[in-house]
Amino acid sequence: MSDNCTPAQLASLIRDNHRFVVMSHVRPDGDALGCTLAMGLCLRQLGKEVAMWNEEGCLEKFSFLPGSELVRKPPAEPQAFDVAFVLDTAVRDRVGACLPAVAKAGAWVNIDHHISNPRFGDLNYIDSAAPATGEILFELFRKMELPVTYEMADNLYVAISTDTGSFQYPSTTARTYEIGAELVRMGVNVGALSQRLYESYPRRRIELLKSLLNALTFTSGDRVASFALTQETTRALGTIPDDNEGLIDTIRAVQGVVVAVFFEELAGEKVRVSLRSKDPRYDVCKIAQQFGGGGHSLAAGIRMPGPLALAQQRVLKAIDESLAAN
Amino acid sequence: MSDNCTPAQLASLIRDNHRFVVMSHVRPDGDALGCTLAMGLCLRQLGKEVAMWNEEGCLEKFSFLPGSELVRKPPAEPQAFDVAFVLDTAVRDRVGACLPAVAKAGAWVNIDHHISNPRFGDLNYIDSAAPATGEILFELFRKMELPVTYEMADNLYVAISTDTGSFQYPSTTARTYEIGAELVRMGVNVGALSQRLYESYPRRRIELLKSLLNALTFTSGDRVASFALTQETTRALGTIPDDNEGLIDTIRAVQGVVVAVFFEELAGEKVRVSLRSKDPRYDVCKIAQQFGGGGHSLAAGIRMPGPLALAQQRVLKAIDESLAAN
Repeated sequence: MSDNCTPAQLASLIRDNHRFVVMSHVRPDGDALGCTLAMGLCLRQLGKEVAMWNEEGCLEKFSFLPGSELVRKPPAEPQAFDVAFVLDTAVRDRVGACLPAVAKAGAWVNIDHHISNPRFGDLNYIDSAAPATGEILFELFRKMELPVTYEMADNLYVAISTDTGSFQYPSTTARTYEIGAELVRMGVNVGALSQRLYESYPRRRIELLKSLLNALTFTSGDRVASFALTQETTRALGTIPDDNEGLIDTIRAVQGVVVAVFFEELAGEKVRVSLRSKDPRYDVCKIAQQFGGGGHSLAAGIRMPGPLALAQQRVLKAIDESLAAN
Repeated sequence: MSDNCTPAQLASLIRDNHRFVVMSHVRPDGDALGCTLAMGLCLRQLGKEVAMWNEEGCLEKFSFLPGSELVRKPPAEPQAFDVAFVLDTAVRDRVGACLPAVAKAGAWVNIDHHISNPRFGDLNYIDSAAPATGEILFELFRKMELPVTYEMADNLYVAISTDTGSFQYPSTTARTYEIGAELVRMGVNVGALSQRLYESYPRRRIELLKSLLNALTFTSGDRVASFALTQETTRALGTIPDDNEGLIDTIRAVQGVVVAVFFEELAGEKVRVSLRSKDPRYDVCKIAQQFGGGGHSLAAGIRMPGPLALAQQRVLKAIDESLAAN
């Protein structure tokens, strides 16, 4: 925490510059896009010139976010900025195609809540106790005395709600609920946003769930539950990566399961692995780091070479060994 | 609201009496049991003699609630009380076997948030704007200046969290989040309670989900999604009624679905029907009332005669007609 920038330093940087770009990680979640928009909209209302980029633009399922149309894919032609914000991104490379699109930035600002963040910015504000980067932004806006508009409030609410599993993960604090209350008083419509976030998915997601439940496997004395999604199934069901979000929680919830793992076969014989721990004493980030991944102790991820069956074997073996050693 | 009792009236009634019974509805949910315990523990710490009853006792899945062992099935021999509390119960009969176990009560107190509640108590406190009866109790404890202990806080948190779908249903207000913050400051462990509530179920529930997804049916131009659970499947999977809780939300979430319906075949050719609406303009309580049921506009229930296939036909037809007329 010692080398976090002060809100005053950040406020000066904003006041004294004009051309901004705001970015977040590839395969953006609600915290990534909500923060990109909240910060971008904040800068816009201050009269700044702002680009909001994500490698994938704004995902269709987040198209209800106020200002979502402002989030663009990075341009082919690199651009120069006074300040580049990187939000909710544990490693700078995770902004993906946004990185080469920044020809130059006078200063990089890195605001994040991932404990593994290596503080890659010129200004860094990392608070690993915050359950969402959206909560950090809310507090920074308050401390910088910048107005939080209705549109910003919606985006911050979505950021916080999605990264806390709707105010229920262990990282949720009394302050998180207080911020929830403040955002609702600002006009956030909880029911409408939650319905878009949690109660709305295409029918193919149900088919995917059925397919995954049929492939569910228990290992390590039933303490590990895992399933794998092949490219073949993805094609057969016509699913997109978004359809998978949160499905891992369904298997994590089975009693006795300590670790839930979701293997997703990607194009080019790569495999994306999502890891979830249910036990604070069991740190899945350590497993992820063994394979070049990262994240939090209870939720981590890996991108690794395939083929799928080999990736499954290697990761499940590493988990089995570490569970045995625990 | 005009004939709600005042907190002062309620405080007097508590102060001036000694033998209390606290009850809630059959097939209790988190709000029912959380309120029974919060009120019961409150009365106990005031030195009162308190019985806490539920037709089913405390469900095993709620055994983590502080004081859960105090919730008993009603005794065979009726007992007399000074005051009988009925909490979170839309119709007095819904306390089930608790009712005949009350030989006599000097006063009935009815505290609830169901809009259809006919105010059956001697003292009534009905607030249909409250998302949970637990929220009403919290406010009443505050207004009566009764201390909220750590054990009461846990129970109130569970009551509010479960009845708001973890702070996300449209009924959730800024005040709900503020109460969440207050309860967390009192010592509620959000992660631990939420894990018990939302991330812990027996493996047979996953098998049940798989079975139900295979039986999923879309009617009324795909605006109604329904599934039915037969006694045969219940027996084959060894499931208990609790295993079904919340499964309806999985199908309600499918895009385009306005109404989700879950038919559960009970013993004796009876059928339990759960109805959920996703559209505030479509009131499923009206459908439930056509068949002698009740509830809220977005969540209602029916117990009706079978056989299962006939119940399905009748209810789906009524929904189809009302959707067409809407």
